[in-house]
Amino acid sequence: MRIGLDVMGGDFAPDAIIEGAVDSLQYLSDNEKLVLIGDEKSIFSKLKKMQIESSLFDIVHTSEIIEMAEHPAKAFSQKKDSSIAVGYAMLKNGAIEGFCSAGNTGAMLVGASYTVNVIPGVLRPALATLLPCIDNRNSVILDVGLNPDCKPEVLLQYGILGSIYAKYVLGKDKPTVGLINIGEEETKGTPAVKAAYEMMKEHPALNFVGNLEGNNLFRETMTDVIVCDGFVGNVILKQGEAFHHIYKSRNLKDSFFDRLDFENIGGTPIVGINANVVIGHGISKRKAIMNMVLQTRAVVHANLAQKIKEAI
Amino acid sequence: MRIGLDVMGGDFAPDAIIEGAVDSLQYLSDNEKLVLIGDEKSIFSKLKKMQIESSLFDIVHTSEIIEMAEHPAKAFSQKKDSSIAVGYAMLKNGAIEGFCSAGNTGAMLVGASYTVNVIPGVLRPALATLLPCIDNRNSVILDVGLNPDCKPEVLLQYGILGSIYAKYVLGKDKPTVGLINIGEEETKGTPAVKAAYEMMKEHPALNFVGNLEGNNLFRETMTDVIVCDGFVGNVILKQGEAFHHIYKSRNLKDSFFDRLDFENIGGTPIVGINANVVIGHGISKRKAIMNMVLQTRAVVHANLAQKIKEAI
Repeated sequence: MRIGLDVMGGDFAPDAIIEGAVDSLQYLSDNEKLVLIGDEKSIFSKLKKMQIESSLFDIVHTSEIIEMAEHPAKAFSQKKDSSIAVGYAMLKNGAIEGFCSAGNTGAMLVGASYTVNVIPGVLRPALATLLPCIDNRNSVILDVGLNPDCKPEVLLQYGILGSIYAKYVLGKDKPTVGLINIGEEETKGTPAVKAAYEMMKEHPALNFVGNLEGNNLFRETMTDVIVCDGFVGNVILKQGEAFHHIYKSRNLKDSFFDRLDFENIGGTPIVGINANVVIGHGISKRKAIMNMVLQTRAVVHANLAQKIKEAI
Repeated sequence: MRIGLDVMGGDFAPDAIIEGAVDSLQYLSDNEKLVLIGDEKSIFSKLKKMQIESSLFDIVHTSEIIEMAEHPAKAFSQKKDSSIAVGYAMLKNGAIEGFCSAGNTGAMLVGASYTVNVIPGVLRPALATLLPCIDNRNSVILDVGLNPDCKPEVLLQYGILGSIYAKYVLGKDKPTVGLINIGEEETKGTPAVKAAYEMMKEHPALNFVGNLEGNNLFRETMTDVIVCDGFVGNVILKQGEAFHHIYKSRNLKDSFFDRLDFENIGGTPIVGINANVVIGHGISKRKAIMNMVLQTRAVVHANLAQKIKEAI
């Protein structure tokens, strides 16, 4: 298995990316290879400084960089020798089986739709991420930012995509599915959420348990799969970050709050496209990058894209 | 000033309501009177048990109870001698200047629209509540559940209503206003939120600072007024409850997380109606009831309904 890592993307690139890549090596087996995609001079010099054999990686040189603030579609189209464009090209021609980057999120999304494409039958791809639960589970929540407004049938499909993720990546049999809403009753919420509830409760592929309120999140009552539109999911995810930040600033010590750290998750897969792609937080440092690589590996191992293709 | 308290509403009524009422007495001045509305036999017996002089309150007997699970409009129309119906009647005829209840929320909302009515010019009333900030401020967030789907002009008006609340109830000069969104840039979010951004940034009555992301909540970066639709606001509020619950269950000790306790806030005013009405959480116990009464008092002191009438 070969996993591509964009070395040039992220606020702390390339140094933190290479450090995270080195840290991830200890978890990779002999037949797993990490492909560092980026400026080879920077890569060799950093590895030398870290006294790491460069032969432990495959290295693919690229000469251009898509900056964090660049216009995604324009940058992706024009910078053919950027790490993101080259990564997607390699993914498309099978040179790598997974690709991850903490770089320009927009360009990563544009790259997905320009090269590997959406799986036929998938209405809207989603960004799926993990939320920690106090009972030590992790749940998958989607969407967390790609589609701020969702039609009911998109929410229904997120339930299906999320269930596949929970089954094959998190190893859960019959994962429970909840729909974020503002009350327990099925008459609550927006028209879209009410209609989604009706569809979800009758769908044979879903272990649907009903509405999930904000106070169920992170607790034993949290389902394995959490469905919401990308606006609500984004706010939930980032509010969790706010609490983790406050927790750290108050010098508290607790294993649950430690798990809230996004660095432990590493990245959010784009679910519903024809390839295994994981997007990291722009502010990712060494530890987050390592976990992004390992999460990409888990997604490739589960063969998530293929599993979705078979199910949809 | 006379404040009406529904003694029969809430999961722990009437005992916890009366206990909270007694606790609030110490904060009331001589010209402020609490009117207990409910079954007088229960009230007298409880006060006697607590060895509290019943003359410290005004007591208005009612013979009917609107249960928590009853159909709001039906119950409000049919039970004319319920504590909620009598409270609203007293509010309408000026016998009390503020009214609060931890009872059937739907019936409280129905009561508002059937009796005291929406202030002309207000597009949609909102439920406004307070969020604690680590810098010791409290911010007002609206809506937290009344209107799950909001048009841009409703969001704009929430900014105005929230600013009036922050100015007169929280005592903030030129309160900052933020719009919940999934990115800093004004091009982010749903069509409704994008359009609201455009309106808010140009409105002379608002000290609008732009979009507010989930990770800004509860932190120094949180604005004084937080605008969102009732779906997102409800999830934010209840996710805060989830974190407070987890915090308590982990035996941590921290003054900020203590402030997250809804019992410290007590209730959410209905903003935009022709009267000062505060709704409490159904699970309110003694302390939450006391704070609901004191919050109602603060809203009456600020003359919130009148201030909104003058501004809209």
